[in-house]
Amino acid sequence: MVSVAVLGATGMVGREMLDILLERSFPFDNLKLLASERSVGKKISCRGRDFLVEKATPESFEGVDIVLASAGAKISQELAPHAVKAGAVVIDNTSAFRMDPDVPLVVSEVNPEALKSHRGIIANPNCSTAQLVLVLHPLRELGRIERVTVATYQSVSGAGKDAVDELMEQSAAYLRGEKTPPYHLSKPIAFNLIPQIDLFLENGYTKEEMKMTNETKKILGDQSLRLSATAVRVPVPVGHSEAVQIEFDREVGVEEVKKILARAHGVKLMDDPATLTFPQPSDVAGKDEVLVGRIRADVSHPHGLALWVVGDNLRKGAALNAVQIAEVLLEKGWLKIKEQQ
Amino acid sequence: MVSVAVLGATGMVGREMLDILLERSFPFDNLKLLASERSVGKKISCRGRDFLVEKATPESFEGVDIVLASAGAKISQELAPHAVKAGAVVIDNTSAFRMDPDVPLVVSEVNPEALKSHRGIIANPNCSTAQLVLVLHPLRELGRIERVTVATYQSVSGAGKDAVDELMEQSAAYLRGEKTPPYHLSKPIAFNLIPQIDLFLENGYTKEEMKMTNETKKILGDQSLRLSATAVRVPVPVGHSEAVQIEFDREVGVEEVKKILARAHGVKLMDDPATLTFPQPSDVAGKDEVLVGRIRADVSHPHGLALWVVGDNLRKGAALNAVQIAEVLLEKGWLKIKEQQ
Repeated sequence: MVSVAVLGATGMVGREMLDILLERSFPFDNLKLLASERSVGKKISCRGRDFLVEKATPESFEGVDIVLASAGAKISQELAPHAVKAGAVVIDNTSAFRMDPDVPLVVSEVNPEALKSHRGIIANPNCSTAQLVLVLHPLRELGRIERVTVATYQSVSGAGKDAVDELMEQSAAYLRGEKTPPYHLSKPIAFNLIPQIDLFLENGYTKEEMKMTNETKKILGDQSLRLSATAVRVPVPVGHSEAVQIEFDREVGVEEVKKILARAHGVKLMDDPATLTFPQPSDVAGKDEVLVGRIRADVSHPHGLALWVVGDNLRKGAALNAVQIAEVLLEKGWLKIKEQQ
Repeated sequence: MVSVAVLGATGMVGREMLDILLERSFPFDNLKLLASERSVGKKISCRGRDFLVEKATPESFEGVDIVLASAGAKISQELAPHAVKAGAVVIDNTSAFRMDPDVPLVVSEVNPEALKSHRGIIANPNCSTAQLVLVLHPLRELGRIERVTVATYQSVSGAGKDAVDELMEQSAAYLRGEKTPPYHLSKPIAFNLIPQIDLFLENGYTKEEMKMTNETKKILGDQSLRLSATAVRVPVPVGHSEAVQIEFDREVGVEEVKKILARAHGVKLMDDPATLTFPQPSDVAGKDEVLVGRIRADVSHPHGLALWVVGDNLRKGAALNAVQIAEVLLEKGWLKIKEQQ
């Protein structure tokens, strides 16, 4: 039995972490829910149990074995070193440490072995990366993946609870014939699309897009892989979708691809044009598996494959993967690092 | 002055055709609004004028010079030959004749010269193709386009008025906590995505997707061009968006691309990351120009370019292009074909 702390417990991902810990009967004997000052004393109810929120401070981590962090990159940067010093392993869902060469970036089904060499901090990838690599990884059995192009259709819950409220309130206003200005997202999202997620970089891509490029390379351990993404916010509450084209170093057969994805861990094949079966965001909320469909040989490339991936961005894209990482650490006995150092 | 008939006058595109004819002061001295039996006697009001709907029959086209047809492929197949026999030129917005080698498929800014050899029927491309080729065509100045990959974000008005009503009613029900079954679209669209437009084909693509492949090749007159599309319906009333990646036969500079698109006919450049300026569907309803932004050198291909295109699917994607084709025919004296035969 271990002692667990959830940092950022009142956010959407934090609540999902709590729910998944309970759902999967994670073996904790102590659970701390940590958040900022303004949430202190709040009660969070989950699966018939009530939990009290405590203030997150540098001293919060005494006696804690595992910290699941999802309170923003700044807070992780500030508090993770204190947690590690206190002997905890931090599984961080923010972008703070993902590209740090000393920090493993892990999707539990793809590169769990990377966990072995952690130094106290482990990074969880961005939501849209996690669901993509779950599909890319098993397909490497068929050939080397040379290039991937992705267009995303990302739900507003990726931007937090406020953004979900904004979508719903704005939609209601729109239907009443009123216009409401955006306050959390950069532009109105109701009945609209925003082709911008996170800040713009020098090369014209957004940070969100380059996260997918860089994180995919790191998780798959292949710096020669080329990936270009266009990240778009869509008026959907939960569930990120991706139109993906993959170029292999050889021809791959669609039937073989389907066979591999049908047995891949964490993936569910949903692909039957005859019965109009294909993944939609409305299928995915609360599901652990990433759904894949619309699989076809790319008519524009002799070694190309096109497909469509939908995942619950709060679960496999965030909270579930973090808990799965904790499970691997426990199972393999890779939790404590102090003895290794 | 010519005599014009709008076939399918009560549909979304038909009404837009009427509006655009009046807006652009198209030189007609007679205007017939044709529709099916159940709309006969309906009054359509537009820009302060009232028009009466007549029944479309094989005899409707006596004395008509130009037919703008948008009543579905079956009706075009049935009535277009009668219209041509009566001496009219049919500018057809349906898929009925687009791939017929004897029928020019035209976007007025791209290949107007193809109109010269028409034999009475001219095809208007699919909405998502029209806005794409408007952007691809001028860029051919920089090099040969070898491959294009597109993910679309298509509004429900592409599926007609009923689909727009369905989106609005379903959204209102969703916000009340109710679920309503889909009746016009194949799946629920409110706060959801449908990665399927039109029927599935043998190769796993949908008809909508292969339309884009085949029509783009025909309009650009380049059968060696390779194009793969994923067509997705999004909960947006009007305005189709496209995430596009283009591979040239040589490196192209982003600044040159922007210069060319800034002066391209029918295109408006909207690209300034510093001020969060990029095209959104909410920008485009009622606009003639196709908006382009998010222009960047593709990080996954040495000769690649990525961009984002948004167009009003009812205007340049349909009604506007049809009226522009009619304008070219008049201007160039290419209307009458009987003398040429």
